[in-house]
Amino acid sequence: MTFEAITPRFGEGVPAGRLRIFDTTLRDGEQAPGAGLTAAEKLEVARQLARLKVDVIEAGFPAASQGDFDAVRQIAQETRGGIAVAALARCKDGDPQRAVEAIGVAERPHLHLFIATSDIHLKHKLRIDRDDARREAVRWVKWARETLGRDAEIEFSAEDASRTEDDFLLDIYEAVTEAGASTLNIPDTVGYAIPAEFGALVGRVKDRIGDNAVISVHCHNDLGLATANTLAAVQAGARQVEVTINGLGERAGNASLEEVVMALRTRPGQFPQLAAGVQTEQLTPASRLVSYLTGFAVQPNKAIVGSNAFAHESGIHQDGYLKNPLTYEIMTPQSVGLSGSTLSIGKLSGRRGLQGKLMELGVDVDGEQLDAIYRAAISLADTKKEVTDADLLALVNERKSDVPRSVELLGWSISSASGGHSVGSVSLVVAGEAKAANETGNGPVNALFKAVDEAVRPVLHWAPVLTEYEIKAVSAGEDAQGQVLVRCRRSSDEGPEAHIVTGHGLSTNIIEASLEAYLTAANKLHGAEVNGIGVAFVGRRTAEEVP
Amino acid sequence: MTFEAITPRFGEGVPAGRLRIFDTTLRDGEQAPGAGLTAAEKLEVARQLARLKVDVIEAGFPAASQGDFDAVRQIAQETRGGIAVAALARCKDGDPQRAVEAIGVAERPHLHLFIATSDIHLKHKLRIDRDDARREAVRWVKWARETLGRDAEIEFSAEDASRTEDDFLLDIYEAVTEAGASTLNIPDTVGYAIPAEFGALVGRVKDRIGDNAVISVHCHNDLGLATANTLAAVQAGARQVEVTINGLGERAGNASLEEVVMALRTRPGQFPQLAAGVQTEQLTPASRLVSYLTGFAVQPNKAIVGSNAFAHESGIHQDGYLKNPLTYEIMTPQSVGLSGSTLSIGKLSGRRGLQGKLMELGVDVDGEQLDAIYRAAISLADTKKEVTDADLLALVNERKSDVPRSVELLGWSISSASGGHSVGSVSLVVAGEAKAANETGNGPVNALFKAVDEAVRPVLHWAPVLTEYEIKAVSAGEDAQGQVLVRCRRSSDEGPEAHIVTGHGLSTNIIEASLEAYLTAANKLHGAEVNGIGVAFVGRRTAEEVP
Repeated sequence: MTFEAITPRFGEGVPAGRLRIFDTTLRDGEQAPGAGLTAAEKLEVARQLARLKVDVIEAGFPAASQGDFDAVRQIAQETRGGIAVAALARCKDGDPQRAVEAIGVAERPHLHLFIATSDIHLKHKLRIDRDDARREAVRWVKWARETLGRDAEIEFSAEDASRTEDDFLLDIYEAVTEAGASTLNIPDTVGYAIPAEFGALVGRVKDRIGDNAVISVHCHNDLGLATANTLAAVQAGARQVEVTINGLGERAGNASLEEVVMALRTRPGQFPQLAAGVQTEQLTPASRLVSYLTGFAVQPNKAIVGSNAFAHESGIHQDGYLKNPLTYEIMTPQSVGLSGSTLSIGKLSGRRGLQGKLMELGVDVDGEQLDAIYRAAISLADTKKEVTDADLLALVNERKSDVPRSVELLGWSISSASGGHSVGSVSLVVAGEAKAANETGNGPVNALFKAVDEAVRPVLHWAPVLTEYEIKAVSAGEDAQGQVLVRCRRSSDEGPEAHIVTGHGLSTNIIEASLEAYLTAANKLHGAEVNGIGVAFVGRRTAEEVP
Repeated sequence: MTFEAITPRFGEGVPAGRLRIFDTTLRDGEQAPGAGLTAAEKLEVARQLARLKVDVIEAGFPAASQGDFDAVRQIAQETRGGIAVAALARCKDGDPQRAVEAIGVAERPHLHLFIATSDIHLKHKLRIDRDDARREAVRWVKWARETLGRDAEIEFSAEDASRTEDDFLLDIYEAVTEAGASTLNIPDTVGYAIPAEFGALVGRVKDRIGDNAVISVHCHNDLGLATANTLAAVQAGARQVEVTINGLGERAGNASLEEVVMALRTRPGQFPQLAAGVQTEQLTPASRLVSYLTGFAVQPNKAIVGSNAFAHESGIHQDGYLKNPLTYEIMTPQSVGLSGSTLSIGKLSGRRGLQGKLMELGVDVDGEQLDAIYRAAISLADTKKEVTDADLLALVNERKSDVPRSVELLGWSISSASGGHSVGSVSLVVAGEAKAANETGNGPVNALFKAVDEAVRPVLHWAPVLTEYEIKAVSAGEDAQGQVLVRCRRSSDEGPEAHIVTGHGLSTNIIEASLEAYLTAANKLHGAEVNGIGVAFVGRRTAEEVP
């Protein structure tokens, strides 16, 4: 028998239809250590996901914290246009009720119940047996169907499905389908599967369940195979894929939305009649937004959204490419929303011209937001020879207005020279009180941050502690803007469960950008302390964990 | 027919044996725009690849430039212990001769010939027909076999194989095998393949060629499927995989060595008796070295080598993981060389203690290099409370001695304050002449760099132009060291073909680190100008391009 003869003809016999794109950037993605978002930031990502036209936005895990509950509820309230809003819940009293409360206001609520099914998870984590797991699963799916009515979307996930004993897995999927589940999710929780075997597993579930439920997959990337496993599952009959922007997620992350969507789009022959409704031109703006807000860089060689993914954008003009782009290009940069223009825009021709330019870059703004960006761009043009596309995008991303300003800056100065200590001084208003301080440090940023600490501590009773610091030039040239990212915790809050926030700063002066980022983080930490909500925290998750 | 019945049982019928790991970080990886390495840097990566025990190091493309030729030759001279050194050559008069000249000194030379075979490449890039392509391929394989003798390794690649008409592709592979090729490489040049179809293609080649040549694959990652395509090929009979550290490479890069190797290691049941000889504990040091030298970040959610790939390393201690690591861990961080210790090492207990600590971190140094790191660590301990593992690794990576210092620093100072210009002054020795300058700028780094430009221009007749600038804190805390990366070109060298070099700086003072990085880049640019060699350049590739 030749190899060809035994190659499966995936897709044959599978009914044609739409593939549902289930985005879990705000749930599984946001669980990545250090990726924590505020409620306002989650809402902003949800709006971009709506522009991207995904089918389902998984907004969070409402039982995890009040902050997550509020964020899910706000997204459920706001999201319209046929996009479903999902919330995660364990099969455990309290969780499903809380999730239903959060998504009840959605135009299309989507409840996502889960329980672990692999022996290793049952024995070592949940300390229950298979019968217990099946009973709880069935119980909560039934409850959900009775509570939400016959048309609601009820999804059941068997956590660690790819390491679950086959007969038990098929039995539990059959049982929850009978109990009313409309979507069955098969997670490769630990990123263990290989495409051929994962496709075969999906095929077995499909054989057992038929058309009685939609089959979904949720793949992790520990061996670099999340996208491939997802696509193998689609070829074997899965009709929902759980994915994240930039492949964000715990450990090595989840299957990347942009890779899965562009593979479907680029290779229609492999995925007959399965085009999803995603507006691919919104992929690059979505990637940039998530990277900016989480502070997680996208590596240059990341597929689809890396800065080198379209080489000819990077100054390399290969002979073949110049003769015919098809020699090296299987999709166009425009199709993923990457503007062809990387040239300086020179002079801004008024607000209208700026708006048009931003449209080209995939950013749709007007009113006050446009005014603010326009003012910032004009002021930037005073300190910098050329205002580039990258500069504009950085200005757009700069949204410090979201954060309540209880620490405000009046002025600062630093000096530093070879062979000596650096000196920094700062003048602030901290919760209404004027405070100034001078400090020395092993560098000017260190000196300035120490001065801030000294100024805020008497009022707040804590100071920010820096856990990460990064600067990137927004564009080429010595007069470029520096974009600073810091991560901080409160000095009063230690250990692995400490609340960590990000702060951003943007200026042609990296000292000023650093200070701005540090103060933004201080304000976020203060806001979180005051409200107890609104900031999503690393390590806040409860005991048992998630698919 | 159930799904299971049509799932291929890959591996059955494929003779068990070793899989050859062919690393092309220094050839295809180094072609990534902006990744250019100096000859000394390439040699350093080659040494790490030897510690990793790959089977073949593809060292470069000798016909591309004198610098690349010299680097390949040096690596060929130095690499021993049964590791082959490969060089790339087009099937075009001049190329193969040059490649053979470069690798002739190797213990195990491996010649890698290629020609494009897809109609789109033949028609639009090479402007020849299929018969021409086959004739040239056969001609140069024959030449190589006659020149190198019967035991030499001669590999033939059909560029853009995955888009080549099937019958022609099989014919050309058969023809070059008859002409003496011992390895047939199947590149997915544009990252277009889907695992099931790529596995099927490999199977067809295997059916035609049998055991008359080793089948190799070379997969690009444009759709995020390079690792999966590589593994599907192995399951279909490929016995050489072309991969790169960190998945570095043109556009979205190549299949990632660490992902492919760890998938084989973690899922032996899927790849029976195919363990490669790679020392996986060297993966993390290799990843860090390549990332440092190329200046290409590895994203936190990169599989195997991302900073979050092992979540429990990042402060998240999930309930399940604590009860039993196997609940969420399919491989240990130790197996990929990630030290369990992220604690501060506090006081360094002498040179011997430092050496032991470095060994744990996967770094093997002694003699002068150890002395230098020890001195740097002691001096760092004076300005920083705690010297961490990350600090030590940063000191190890700091190798400015490689660069000839024609511009030397005597001293500098800066000052900056809110609402005003920044001032910087610098005092240098430029090619033996003392030079000092003061400048103002829109930030202190800008002011200082402008002062450097003013000081060097009268002597060098150019100044460095900054094209990229990044700072990262090496560890947490406000007194952390800042690691600066700059990319620069000469002001006299413009356009997309401009020579771009990287410069690194490391200091607790980010101004000092920035200056150090800028001067290192200036020295590299000067060295390249003087020697015309030794620096590998972006955009230097010749007309027709590579798999």
